[in-house]
Amino acid sequence: MSASREDTAARRPGRGAEPYTLASLVEVAATAFLERGYDATSMEDLSRAAGITKSSFYHHVSGKEALLRGALDRALDGLFGVLAEPAALEGPPVDRLRHIVRRQVEVLATELPYVTLLLRLRGNTETERWALARRREFDQAVASLVREATEAGATHPQVDPGVAARLLSGTVNSLIEWYRPGRVPVPDLVDAVERQVFDGLLGASG
Amino acid sequence: MSASREDTAARRPGRGAEPYTLASLVEVAATAFLERGYDATSMEDLSRAAGITKSSFYHHVSGKEALLRGALDRALDGLFGVLAEPAALEGPPVDRLRHIVRRQVEVLATELPYVTLLLRLRGNTETERWALARRREFDQAVASLVREATEAGATHPQVDPGVAARLLSGTVNSLIEWYRPGRVPVPDLVDAVERQVFDGLLGASG
Repeated sequence: MSASREDTAARRPGRGAEPYTLASLVEVAATAFLERGYDATSMEDLSRAAGITKSSFYHHVSGKEALLRGALDRALDGLFGVLAEPAALEGPPVDRLRHIVRRQVEVLATELPYVTLLLRLRGNTETERWALARRREFDQAVASLVREATEAGATHPQVDPGVAARLLSGTVNSLIEWYRPGRVPVPDLVDAVERQVFDGLLGASG
Repeated sequence: MSASREDTAARRPGRGAEPYTLASLVEVAATAFLERGYDATSMEDLSRAAGITKSSFYHHVSGKEALLRGALDRALDGLFGVLAEPAALEGPPVDRLRHIVRRQVEVLATELPYVTLLLRLRGNTETERWALARRREFDQAVASLVREATEAGATHPQVDPGVAARLLSGTVNSLIEWYRPGRVPVPDLVDAVERQVFDGLLGASG
């Protein structure tokens, strides 16, 4: 009996008192922040959404800003993890770029609420400004690679690499506006973005 | 003396009492809505920004929603105007698409605050929902052309035309995130977007 009750609690972490992981509370918070906005979401709202009391919520996290930080960490860890992968570090710039774009789409699709939060930040709090600075760092790393690829003669010769990098990041980030899990299988999405980014709408004929 | 005072007023429509055109008040409103958000902007704020009294403001427009409508009209008139141009209506689908993308970038760059407002709408009011429906109509017209171009064998054979259309609109619309007037000359921006969208980052070799 007691084992079966534990099972139920484990399967429905939003009901009953325990167990909660920080990750599950961060997930609840990220969803709420996206739905109502960070400022409009209270710890009251979050405990109700998680199905626990406000005081047990505070047992796990110090407050709203810590939850936002947790959500943004998850997005940024995913993105910076990609930059640290061997295929992002070794080889011709254009191949490294191709690897990064593919993996960036994968991270975006699998960590959608966290990346969406990151991309919608306005920079109103200390945590938001920190995350925006990290996001700029990521964009700058990709922009340097676009520049390297251009210098190596691999990219479109008539497009300024700074503009090309902006358009590249714009294309990838625009996925948050329409992509929803299950809408397109992730591997197909990854292939489609790679093809459109590198070969364009007209594409290679093959 | 009096002539010189009139000159100054004409050059600085935000100061002194007259003349105001509806267009100049819509411009003031669009800027304010973008800075503080539509909900957070009062008619008080708008009259202060325009440098006129609230009652003379009301002499020109019925209220905030009419100003939002004016701003969104300006963006939508620009975009739908493009679809009505001969080069958007005649010729092979891929050529029509190329014309539309180039002109869409031009409209976006020259009507930046209005298009930015349009792309950031949430659909909270009647006017917002009307504008979102019009925006979807525009996107669907472009998506049909992408489909036609694909059926004619002109686009990348391995990318689903629905996904291709989403990525195309995502690339163009992402300009509002970074483009600022004067940052890149508009004709160069138009060329860069056309090349990246149709030929990709790797581009044609010429």
